[in-house]
Amino acid sequence: MLVVDADANATLIVPLLEAARITPVDAAFTILPWSETEDPVAVVNSLISGASVAAVGSQTWSRFTLGLQSADQRRRWIDAEDLMSGLRIIKSADEIAALRAAASTVDSVVDTFEDMAFKGRTEEEVARDISDGALAAGRESVEFCIVASGPHGASPHHTPDDRRIREGDAIVVDFGGRERGYCSDTTRMVVVGHAHSGFDTAYRVLEEAQSAACDFAAPGLSTSSVDAHARAVIDDAGYGGRFIHRLGHGIGMDVHERPYLVEGDDTLIEPGMAFSIEPGIYTPGEWGMRIEDIVVATDTGIERMNTSHRQIRVVS
Amino acid sequence: MLVVDADANATLIVPLLEAARITPVDAAFTILPWSETEDPVAVVNSLISGASVAAVGSQTWSRFTLGLQSADQRRRWIDAEDLMSGLRIIKSADEIAALRAAASTVDSVVDTFEDMAFKGRTEEEVARDISDGALAAGRESVEFCIVASGPHGASPHHTPDDRRIREGDAIVVDFGGRERGYCSDTTRMVVVGHAHSGFDTAYRVLEEAQSAACDFAAPGLSTSSVDAHARAVIDDAGYGGRFIHRLGHGIGMDVHERPYLVEGDDTLIEPGMAFSIEPGIYTPGEWGMRIEDIVVATDTGIERMNTSHRQIRVVS
Repeated sequence: MLVVDADANATLIVPLLEAARITPVDAAFTILPWSETEDPVAVVNSLISGASVAAVGSQTWSRFTLGLQSADQRRRWIDAEDLMSGLRIIKSADEIAALRAAASTVDSVVDTFEDMAFKGRTEEEVARDISDGALAAGRESVEFCIVASGPHGASPHHTPDDRRIREGDAIVVDFGGRERGYCSDTTRMVVVGHAHSGFDTAYRVLEEAQSAACDFAAPGLSTSSVDAHARAVIDDAGYGGRFIHRLGHGIGMDVHERPYLVEGDDTLIEPGMAFSIEPGIYTPGEWGMRIEDIVVATDTGIERMNTSHRQIRVVS
Repeated sequence: MLVVDADANATLIVPLLEAARITPVDAAFTILPWSETEDPVAVVNSLISGASVAAVGSQTWSRFTLGLQSADQRRRWIDAEDLMSGLRIIKSADEIAALRAAASTVDSVVDTFEDMAFKGRTEEEVARDISDGALAAGRESVEFCIVASGPHGASPHHTPDDRRIREGDAIVVDFGGRERGYCSDTTRMVVVGHAHSGFDTAYRVLEEAQSAACDFAAPGLSTSSVDAHARAVIDDAGYGGRFIHRLGHGIGMDVHERPYLVEGDDTLIEPGMAFSIEPGIYTPGEWGMRIEDIVVATDTGIERMNTSHRQIRVVS
């Protein structure tokens, strides 16, 4: 746990075993190791004894927060998300470069889909190949890889399983990983042979919705208005109620972080915000489709980080 | 979040998007979906309004616990670890079978080390091969794979990097994964060609310490006494202060869970407890060594789940 006091003195409380592996850059923090017979919660408590309010990381395990709370019932605890999000929501030039590099690696893998074998193989096997391809292309880690074929595509967060891919299947491929600490998250559609005509018709609507949202998004607009803009295209084409998730999410050191492009979130877009634009259309029991790019807001609109084409890739 | 009330009624609060993927077995719980414009914390709060005490999962993100706390300042919150650990610390016959299967897969991979290429390759490349081997052997997932060569071995939790493995390197290989929901965690030593004589001498002490702890551990003894027993062997042989971590940790659905075999933990061993026995000796800047088996307590002692041999494996 990194403890930062109101005067910006930072102390990293770290197991003794790990302490030797950590070198503070520019003396940004001091290291306070704890041995296996010490209680790290007590070590942290000794550092914050003077604080009447403390903010704790959103993802900190409750074991630690409850332990810290029990030592001093009067201290007020708040979620550090509001503080951290203020530091993270606008990306610097370096962060944008890292996000662009991460997106570019995904694009290079997407562009190999036509050379990969899909038909007759399981979703798990194909997901493995895509993950291996991303690692070979220089990705430091692959955080997730959704391969959702045929009716599985209708579940946006499907976990690849042993379903064998068949002729005519539409396949949602949604994957991302980490490069220089920053994440990517991209979805493209693949079809084995030919999809039926109803699928192609819906896909043209989806492309239009995704493209319209990218053209519309700009500084000064609320994130929810971009969601509404894409949703209107899908609703107006007769697919109302089949775009069953938010339009997008912020991305950076986490795959999902603020801002969220969803009804009720009225964050105003500012230059440097990075987020996904990923409308989808889903028909339970039959198929699903989604197109997702990571974009960064500029002074006048957005720039797409993903530049690979968004048409259906026909594979065998 | 799964909410269980004092009458054992269980409700799973789950995003609407995921609800269709979940089927309660034997009506063990009901599903309460929340849509993307709802606040899941408010949904949980509505279910626990009558509770004056609530226990929350140790690993629950503080974002959620703090959100729940802010809705009712009078409710007392406790760490669910004590409740859950009571349910989990003694493994059933089914759980022991799953742990044995997970250990057996690791053993089958360990037995391929002599056929693998180490010299001239990076730690990352070797770690990849081992992970692939574990997946091919039927492991559902590989949770971690430490390959720590030469001086890197002195850092018990070393992350594999681009160091190229050389003639004479001793290599700590510590890996584990999940099978049927249960974890494995095993360490074996590999040497490229011949290690120097000082290493071999220390290794004989390490083998003796690990073996002595396995012979000693039995129901009714404290976990800390088993740690002390192994430590005494290492100290008495002149390596005092170089076994820099606890002897072991419980294992089950988590890689690390109660009980812990460490000074100050006076949990009494009971039949069905599963834990690691993993002494190590570390010489900073030069080398490290560790031997780790997963064992389960029986009525009279312990059974080793890992049956692969514990001698140094000579590789090229």
